Amino acid sequence: MKVYLEKSIPHKIEDQIKELGYEVTRDATNALDEIGFVVGSQQLIPLPWEQLINVKAVLLKSVGIDYLPLDILERNHVILTNNRGAYATPIGEFIIYNMLQIAKQNGFFYDNQREHQWKFSNKLEGLSGKSVLFLGTGTIAIEAAKRLESFEMDIYGYNTSGKRVAPFQRIITESSLKKELANMDYLVFCLPSTKDTEYFFNEKMLQHIKPGVKIINISRGNVIDENALIRGLEEKLVGGAALDVFEEEPLDKNSPLWEMDQVYLTPHNSFYSDGNQERQFLTILENLKRYKEGKEFINIVNYRKGY
Amino acid sequence: MKVYLEKSIPHKIEDQIKELGYEVTRDATNALDEIGFVVGSQQLIPLPWEQLINVKAVLLKSVGIDYLPLDILERNHVILTNNRGAYATPIGEFIIYNMLQIAKQNGFFYDNQREHQWKFSNKLEGLSGKSVLFLGTGTIAIEAAKRLESFEMDIYGYNTSGKRVAPFQRIITESSLKKELANMDYLVFCLPSTKDTEYFFNEKMLQHIKPGVKIINISRGNVIDENALIRGLEEKLVGGAALDVFEEEPLDKNSPLWEMDQVYLTPHNSFYSDGNQERQFLTILENLKRYKEGKEFINIVNYRKGY
Repeated sequence: MKVYLEKSIPHKIEDQIKELGYEVTRDATNALDEIGFVVGSQQLIPLPWEQLINVKAVLLKSVGIDYLPLDILERNHVILTNNRGAYATPIGEFIIYNMLQIAKQNGFFYDNQREHQWKFSNKLEGLSGKSVLFLGTGTIAIEAAKRLESFEMDIYGYNTSGKRVAPFQRIITESSLKKELANMDYLVFCLPSTKDTEYFFNEKMLQHIKPGVKIINISRGNVIDENALIRGLEEKLVGGAALDVFEEEPLDKNSPLWEMDQVYLTPHNSFYSDGNQERQFLTILENLKRYKEGKEFINIVNYRKGY
Repeated sequence: MKVYLEKSIPHKIEDQIKELGYEVTRDATNALDEIGFVVGSQQLIPLPWEQLINVKAVLLKSVGIDYLPLDILERNHVILTNNRGAYATPIGEFIIYNMLQIAKQNGFFYDNQREHQWKFSNKLEGLSGKSVLFLGTGTIAIEAAKRLESFEMDIYGYNTSGKRVAPFQRIITESSLKKELANMDYLVFCLPSTKDTEYFFNEKMLQHIKPGVKIINISRGNVIDENALIRGLEEKLVGGAALDVFEEEPLDKNSPLWEMDQVYLTPHNSFYSDGNQERQFLTILENLKRYKEGKEFINIVNYRKGY
């Protein structure tokens, strides 16, 4: 049973997979019925999925799964594992960075630096004493929240089940969300992209937020209605935003977001870190090892939930 | 026993002092012998100090003490407390912010944003797994180091005495500094300005640093030889710098620092935070509480040392 590797997979990883006792191929035109595992991410899109009839598992190096033909995979009872957790450390750091760059008026200082201007700001804010709500309590939110624990903040998490998750001081669910929003200084969107999370931030939510709230999105662009966010920023209901993901990527060159005060944009880049290469393939290698040992996979995606 | 409050003390603080069980006055003309505590800063100067015969403690909201009649206070065995540490929280946050803005390539993204450019960077680094050395282990370094504890870094402190200070994992002293510099990814200057710390970072130090080291200075401009730093940056020995203080302030408009890649400048602004007003009175309230509980005061000034 062969492991199909997309082009991006380094030879070093290929060697490690072979060491586990697997045969490896990068050819998706021949002997498709011999392929038992598929490893990769976006480069898997053009695979002839209907003909991959003996695939046991697709092992993704991405966290997102929405680019795959999920209906075919589910119908064929293919196990799907993703890389949740692998990017949690760099994205967790990126969240703290973005909260701080809004709090510390990065744009004001950087613009002045470009013009050799020495201008004091009395708009700097502290994180100390503020509250932050993580929308979603998965690994990324956990890694960020862990790092915030020493910042003297109130740290809350939102999830649908109400399940307690450390290190969030309290879990908020749908029934109390509207009310609780009024107390939150920072909203950090860590939601997966599903039908239920589409436009989670929208015009209605704008009516319930604390005026001046800061918004971070490092998950998926479509969990935020960008027009609602833009209106919120224009009317100062929203005090700042750091966005790494957008409804359409790349972001339209004419989007007002590029020019807005206290808005910081990065091109779906938060996951990247010099430590990633190592971290990226840990789950995949672990699962291929587990298969040989007859153990259950980790990071299995639930098709129904979509994550 | 009454607490005398100078005019500047907010009514909110007055209420909190009353809640601790004290009687409060702002009148320095009557019943002076009933005053047991004096709270304020510069507005205390004209008080009739010779007549304040029953004062147990003067609780300052300033760090400096030199405007007071120290001879009278010392002779009367008055306890004097100041506000050292009050700015450690915002500056501590500012240090983390600056480490992250260098690691996460802030300038690259911000320049691109200004030009509506969607450009991915594969130069982002993590703090996770890196090492940081704080030069100086006072309250500011401690507050920053506390916040870094969850970032999976090696956190070291340098001081002259070798005294262990939490939360630094190890203390480095002069004898081993040169050798240890070779392992440090971040150097954070938290040194006071004294004869011994002038040009602490200089051409000699450049020879011992780890190539690509990132440098943060939030203490005093003269602890760094700016010409040496500029040379280090030009030759890529130094991988980035965030400077809030300078040899001369404002920084000369012709300084090459304004234009350098991965150099971030702020105008002696790191101490500022919206939480400062409240923090200013924390020590005072704490000490009034401690007195009621029979506990020793914090932040007691040593008359002989002058701080």
